[in-house]
Amino acid sequence: MVTSQGRFLILLIKKYMERILINQLAKHEGQKTIVKGRILNIRNLSKVMFLIVQDYTGTIQIVFEKSVEVKIGDVVSVEGLVKKEPRSKYGFEISGDNVEVISGTEDLPFDLAKNDLNLNLPTLLDNRTLSLRHPKVQAIFKLYDILLKGYENVMREEGFTEVKTPKILGAATEGGANFFKMKYFDKEATLAQSPQFYKQIMVGVFERVFEIGSTFRAEPHFTTRHVNEYISLDAEMGFIKDFNDVADMLNKILKKMFLMIEKEGKQYLDMYNIKISEVPDQIPRFKLSEIKKIVKGKYDYEIPKDTDIDPEGERLAGRYAKEEFNSDFIFITHYPWKDKPFYTMPSEENPEETYGFDLIFKGLEIVTGSQRIHTYKQLIENMKKKKIKPDGMEFYLDTFKYAMPPHGGWGMGSERLIQQILELGSIKEAILFPRDVKRLVP
Amino acid sequence: MVTSQGRFLILLIKKYMERILINQLAKHEGQKTIVKGRILNIRNLSKVMFLIVQDYTGTIQIVFEKSVEVKIGDVVSVEGLVKKEPRSKYGFEISGDNVEVISGTEDLPFDLAKNDLNLNLPTLLDNRTLSLRHPKVQAIFKLYDILLKGYENVMREEGFTEVKTPKILGAATEGGANFFKMKYFDKEATLAQSPQFYKQIMVGVFERVFEIGSTFRAEPHFTTRHVNEYISLDAEMGFIKDFNDVADMLNKILKKMFLMIEKEGKQYLDMYNIKISEVPDQIPRFKLSEIKKIVKGKYDYEIPKDTDIDPEGERLAGRYAKEEFNSDFIFITHYPWKDKPFYTMPSEENPEETYGFDLIFKGLEIVTGSQRIHTYKQLIENMKKKKIKPDGMEFYLDTFKYAMPPHGGWGMGSERLIQQILELGSIKEAILFPRDVKRLVP
Repeated sequence: MVTSQGRFLILLIKKYMERILINQLAKHEGQKTIVKGRILNIRNLSKVMFLIVQDYTGTIQIVFEKSVEVKIGDVVSVEGLVKKEPRSKYGFEISGDNVEVISGTEDLPFDLAKNDLNLNLPTLLDNRTLSLRHPKVQAIFKLYDILLKGYENVMREEGFTEVKTPKILGAATEGGANFFKMKYFDKEATLAQSPQFYKQIMVGVFERVFEIGSTFRAEPHFTTRHVNEYISLDAEMGFIKDFNDVADMLNKILKKMFLMIEKEGKQYLDMYNIKISEVPDQIPRFKLSEIKKIVKGKYDYEIPKDTDIDPEGERLAGRYAKEEFNSDFIFITHYPWKDKPFYTMPSEENPEETYGFDLIFKGLEIVTGSQRIHTYKQLIENMKKKKIKPDGMEFYLDTFKYAMPPHGGWGMGSERLIQQILELGSIKEAILFPRDVKRLVP
Repeated sequence: MVTSQGRFLILLIKKYMERILINQLAKHEGQKTIVKGRILNIRNLSKVMFLIVQDYTGTIQIVFEKSVEVKIGDVVSVEGLVKKEPRSKYGFEISGDNVEVISGTEDLPFDLAKNDLNLNLPTLLDNRTLSLRHPKVQAIFKLYDILLKGYENVMREEGFTEVKTPKILGAATEGGANFFKMKYFDKEATLAQSPQFYKQIMVGVFERVFEIGSTFRAEPHFTTRHVNEYISLDAEMGFIKDFNDVADMLNKILKKMFLMIEKEGKQYLDMYNIKISEVPDQIPRFKLSEIKKIVKGKYDYEIPKDTDIDPEGERLAGRYAKEEFNSDFIFITHYPWKDKPFYTMPSEENPEETYGFDLIFKGLEIVTGSQRIHTYKQLIENMKKKKIKPDGMEFYLDTFKYAMPPHGGWGMGSERLIQQILELGSIKEAILFPRDVKRLVP
């Protein structure tokens, strides 16, 4: 039998033993508490030892007036007294009594306590499970979390319904190139290169839909802006007057998202000395044909004839937007008919152009969008002109027999957005576990 | 030259021509407006004609005192006068002047205006692009949207960071069975059956993470509760005392999500005459060994020896929870060691059991979770006992050399949740475009 006094003591000890989250320490000033987390850094002075410990709510300094047996990277439980400490950037610190190593680390292959990891990209990615623990790398994915939250919230505010569409497809969406193929029981299947067909179908159901989903491209690229699997922020909306309505919506969405990232991600942006771009109320819009002239006239660069626009052309278009309009963004519109997929609405004024557009952010394409063809007749005609067979796409094409409103949408590369916000050297830095031609692991 | 009076008139006409959203009509009482949307239903009386029109914000009745040439399913623009109408369930109606068919439909293959579609499952799914337009089918995916929003919001409230992990994998997560294989450039790859390895690795980075992601299972099932591609609501959390902390968190998350669905989804639940389940503050928890005895003793059913628990056992466990605790939920814990993956923490008390659990909702498993092994030594020992080779998993296993906190998590089937909330006959009704052994299209 435990006496009532005994029970009281047990309760007291239990309460005392509860972990206190680091962002709650202010409420425990002057009290003995337990903090649990990972040791980010250790400083050893003659008579004192400082530990920086991180949990999922924040980071705190713990001061020991003795030497304790711990390593950077250890997972620990620390007992100590919470004290105000104005000199600490956290406002508080803990005067440590005891530290228990819950889970000890082997020697780390590189120094996670340095301000910058300074690893080359392959090393950074080969050791991803550890490099992700560095605060500056964490910051990238904290911003990514805010970006996802921003898209989810802002799209809902604008009346879009979140949908999830299949990634294993029977048909190839855009003509068959650059698809990963797989065996699906006794059938051949492909992995979705975009939710294009499905999000258009869903315009016929909910009028406005968005999707955050995995996207797969079998392109054998070796660049700083391509990967073979990424997360696309898709949207599709009905009852548009023309493609400008789609561009306007995207403009508005981005403005709200960037304000949210600025507000909630300040500490992470600061780690990269980044002041987040202001999204103009009206992002400048230029036809591709105009951009070609501008780039030639202002920067004496000829965009190669065999592309719609090349990376250098995009970069210079971005430079023009910055120089002329102080804008980090520029819409390039009216992409050529021959380069756009069959569902893109051709221009009424010039059949060699379409109502397809890209959005360039700091010189890199981050969004592709367009008005889509919304009548069965025009869709079939356009496919014939492009010599595309309807095989396997009947379910998509048939949808247009049953009345679709004029509509359009976009696909936005979530990782490219973060890459460009933070001005990272490669998109792979903005992906937890990137996939490229050579990289399937980790 | 346009005179200033002319300009004024043009502005007036432009303003007048702007579409008014249906949920904004109250603000336009007594005014001429334009509504755009799809005709859901038509009723023809002797001298009047009623159209029900839906846009993305709602549904409205439009009364014409003449006959107009439209069909159910047409996409239209309607001009008319907004009038209060207390007898209408919308509170308002429009006295129609004109209707313009923006996009006309062919004859529909089935009657979308009936209260219930009453199609068999293959017909419902073969004609998915149209059946999704039926209000009762729309309701399923409006609830799904709220469910996603609920998970996103509630997980963030609890300090979880949203992550996106790769779906193309070099290694098979749980031993190699039931994986879709694919060619990845010059390598063999598999599609992710769960984000298991990656979410655990991320506990070492952010301590609490969640993911909403595509999941692929090559199981040749023909049941009402299996599909080959689904959206898993995953979570993983560090610094747990034991698996009960994970179950407690899940309990709390579900309680908040269900309250949100009840509040925001009432109109959709009503269409199915569903009163959403109350999530108990403490969902009952029973060991699997106890459940086996209870099911045998109370319902005289013997769970087959070659399974941990079979569907009938789950159903009866659910019945027991309802009868004894008036709970639609029950945790079944301590699943057998031989049936659980190698990363599941074995029980300290009984090496034949683990700290793995399932959550049963209305007699169907909707969540699998567990405490995980968090030390390298124990992980390697457990793999040896299970005769699992570490090939291809080194990146995962090595993570545990560098200090991982005690942790656990879950994977929740998002579509099963909706299936069970609405008591749908098949999970395929809860997926926009489901994938099963025979179904790759639409």
